Amino acid sequence: MLYKSILYFVQKGAKSRQLHHMPKAPLPGEPAKPCTLTEIPGPKSEALLNEFSKIQQVDIQYFGDYQRSIGNYLADIDGNVFLDMFMQVSTLALGYNHRSILGVLSCGGNQRVIANRPALGLFPGLEWPRKIQNTLLQPCVAPKGLPCVFTAMCAACSTEHAIQMAFIKYAEKRRCGKDFTDEEKKSALFNKPPGCPKLSILSFEGGFHGRTFGALALSHYRYITKVDVPSLPWPIAPYPHYLYPLNQYEKENKQEDVRCLEQVEELIEQYEKTMPVAGIIVEAIQCEGGDRHASPDFFLQLQEICKKRSIPLILDEIQTGGGATGRIWAHEYFELNIPPDIVTFSYKMQASGFYHSPEYMPKQPCRVFNVWMGDPIKILLLEAVLKTIEAEDLLTHVCYVGNYLLCQLNTLQHEFSDLISSVRGRGFIIAFDTPCKDTRSVQVSGNGTKTIRLRPCLIFGEYHADIFLEILRDCLQELAEN
Amino acid sequence: MLYKSILYFVQKGAKSRQLHHMPKAPLPGEPAKPCTLTEIPGPKSEALLNEFSKIQQVDIQYFGDYQRSIGNYLADIDGNVFLDMFMQVSTLALGYNHRSILGVLSCGGNQRVIANRPALGLFPGLEWPRKIQNTLLQPCVAPKGLPCVFTAMCAACSTEHAIQMAFIKYAEKRRCGKDFTDEEKKSALFNKPPGCPKLSILSFEGGFHGRTFGALALSHYRYITKVDVPSLPWPIAPYPHYLYPLNQYEKENKQEDVRCLEQVEELIEQYEKTMPVAGIIVEAIQCEGGDRHASPDFFLQLQEICKKRSIPLILDEIQTGGGATGRIWAHEYFELNIPPDIVTFSYKMQASGFYHSPEYMPKQPCRVFNVWMGDPIKILLLEAVLKTIEAEDLLTHVCYVGNYLLCQLNTLQHEFSDLISSVRGRGFIIAFDTPCKDTRSVQVSGNGTKTIRLRPCLIFGEYHADIFLEILRDCLQELAEN
Repeated sequence: MLYKSILYFVQKGAKSRQLHHMPKAPLPGEPAKPCTLTEIPGPKSEALLNEFSKIQQVDIQYFGDYQRSIGNYLADIDGNVFLDMFMQVSTLALGYNHRSILGVLSCGGNQRVIANRPALGLFPGLEWPRKIQNTLLQPCVAPKGLPCVFTAMCAACSTEHAIQMAFIKYAEKRRCGKDFTDEEKKSALFNKPPGCPKLSILSFEGGFHGRTFGALALSHYRYITKVDVPSLPWPIAPYPHYLYPLNQYEKENKQEDVRCLEQVEELIEQYEKTMPVAGIIVEAIQCEGGDRHASPDFFLQLQEICKKRSIPLILDEIQTGGGATGRIWAHEYFELNIPPDIVTFSYKMQASGFYHSPEYMPKQPCRVFNVWMGDPIKILLLEAVLKTIEAEDLLTHVCYVGNYLLCQLNTLQHEFSDLISSVRGRGFIIAFDTPCKDTRSVQVSGNGTKTIRLRPCLIFGEYHADIFLEILRDCLQELAEN
Repeated sequence: MLYKSILYFVQKGAKSRQLHHMPKAPLPGEPAKPCTLTEIPGPKSEALLNEFSKIQQVDIQYFGDYQRSIGNYLADIDGNVFLDMFMQVSTLALGYNHRSILGVLSCGGNQRVIANRPALGLFPGLEWPRKIQNTLLQPCVAPKGLPCVFTAMCAACSTEHAIQMAFIKYAEKRRCGKDFTDEEKKSALFNKPPGCPKLSILSFEGGFHGRTFGALALSHYRYITKVDVPSLPWPIAPYPHYLYPLNQYEKENKQEDVRCLEQVEELIEQYEKTMPVAGIIVEAIQCEGGDRHASPDFFLQLQEICKKRSIPLILDEIQTGGGATGRIWAHEYFELNIPPDIVTFSYKMQASGFYHSPEYMPKQPCRVFNVWMGDPIKILLLEAVLKTIEAEDLLTHVCYVGNYLLCQLNTLQHEFSDLISSVRGRGFIIAFDTPCKDTRSVQVSGNGTKTIRLRPCLIFGEYHADIFLEILRDCLQELAEN
């Protein structure tokens, strides 16, 4: 997994070098710099891991000390302190132990909300509608034109329920307002058409939307997540593979857009007779697939294909939403003329779910539904995150520091062109490639791809960027000399 | 939805009648009895609901006042107080605002655990393995013979990952220890065999395992949850439909077991060539399907079929686990000779996931995996629930009060044999049928089935049972007279 790489990158550097200069300052409570005392994982983590791996097969890197972690720094149980540029899985918006988050949790009223976790689709609390309005549906938060929101427990469930809504809408249109037939009602209970019709969702190569059955059928980024598990014969289109730097390859990249979009149209037609496409799902930036960006024009044209054929466009903003790109939603950069039909979210938004336009609301209750419909505590945490984003103008901050980091990485790319390439990013979704395997020897592990991805939290500053850049430069220098 | 019916049943009665006798006493803080002041939903709930239904299509009954709810009583925002015999969706183990749950949440250290929610499969906190040991893996908690546990975010995800583990195991055996072929690796990314093989999971008519794609393909209880959504052509076997009272129909019910089990074997053989059965999933009690119980002998024989054919038995204890039946797991009543291969849990257990035997652990990491791997706060809450169960001997309590309630319902069944029938239950999983539609006029809504289900929390006492029984008797009396 790559997200740990950069942590190691940083601590590896920090261990052997004195940092040269420190502009600005650490945030209150933060250490001045990362510090490693042991190999990673350290002996305490390793001992725990040996025991724990008898119980669960996971991919634990080390055990965190979350009482001591603070701001941009993740402490482990061996006394190491890392500058965390991935923030778990890009999921912590404000870093560790942020005062606003701790404030939410120390409030007795909020503790009662957690203690009495309601089934939100049946018996929500008084405050639920107002909290939804004050968070997910704030005018500066909800994607323009999408006033409805479905809440769920996790990212994969968001994908699952979003595609259900697309299927239901497709069938509803085809039924022209008629009621379900007895045959539909009966056959649905046995997984058979016409009740369970043959329909599909079109997804893209390299995409990732979750690991439950439906979401996994839409995900195509690492074989190990899919092999041996049955799947669905749904259409999969190529996703643009750009050449970098973008300004040198404008023509080629435009052709790449055309190629992919032509395939989308061909697939829709090809499936029309056997398994019609009821929705197209695409990430605003392909994150797990290696931070692959498609152009705003690609999305504009994809949306036009959708409109022309009355197919909903489901935009996955699970990893890109919540301010990570310097706007609440990455698709704001695409300047679409009309909103996407469905937008999924999770991660930095704390709560999971999706927005949709009113026309997608099923006519009957409980058709898109689940036991809990999310967890109210996540909305309380989101409220604190959004207030902090506003109070500290963090979107501007992310744009500024993201740009700074990108510029500096571009400079390094010029200087070490054999070692890093394809520097790319929006806000704090930043990545670069390492062209040969040797370069990656400084990392904990490889995963078959060549991308190093950065996902700092929203309070990552120029000060932290400089620490990272200096260590990265030293590592590259050392590699260049060998 | 039926789970609200009984609430209404109770408040409807309470509104018009004075309760005659009250043995024992309410729990500390609880009111003496339920009390309704308005129609249900009341005007405040109705106004909120009208607004909220523009945002979300759910099935809200009324809005709860969770600051005022206590013990077995759920307060709403219109000042009504219900004796809650369904506890959200059977999910609150200790009722509302239980001191032990509030104690967990008021602890600063625990607040930091929530604030810094880790990706548990990558960077868990120091306390995670010990907490898992002290809760899910306690000798008196973990199902015998299942020392491994996978944690997830919700019930549906537990089902999804459990069946993935079954598929992976099946393919691993078929591969005889060989590595993945290049063709498998490549085809898996495109959802195709041999990488994504044609395999199936056998499920039962009337079952319910969740609402994500894979889980929904295994669920067959209400057409409205499935219609218009594509599904998988997996085998579906009949589930025993017993005649009550059981002691009068021993022979018929035994024949019913034989009929269903024969179908299971036939289906396995029928699918062997096209889509082999890689697992069988079954609920310990079919809950959403209307509280249908199968005999211990049915489960014993089902397990024998599984063993004979090397197919894992996945036992769904999502609604039945956590003490609801008077044991931690309902399958303890079956006295199986060997443990089931996989046991899923959620609801009263607070945390979601599944237990499995070590042989199901995939050889490579991250094959059965997700971003969060559950939420540590749920384990902290489970710890409090389990401590309370032990300290207050709640399993014995559930057996005792459950038995009392069942006996009393049987008496009512004799007295009002035209109005209620098929009284059945284990511990606090109790249900009875209402044979004609007229009887159900006292309920908020019907759902096509005829069952009223009870799911009190573990601190529901004889005192509360008497309140319920008295109101029920009065309702039945009134119906019998009309």
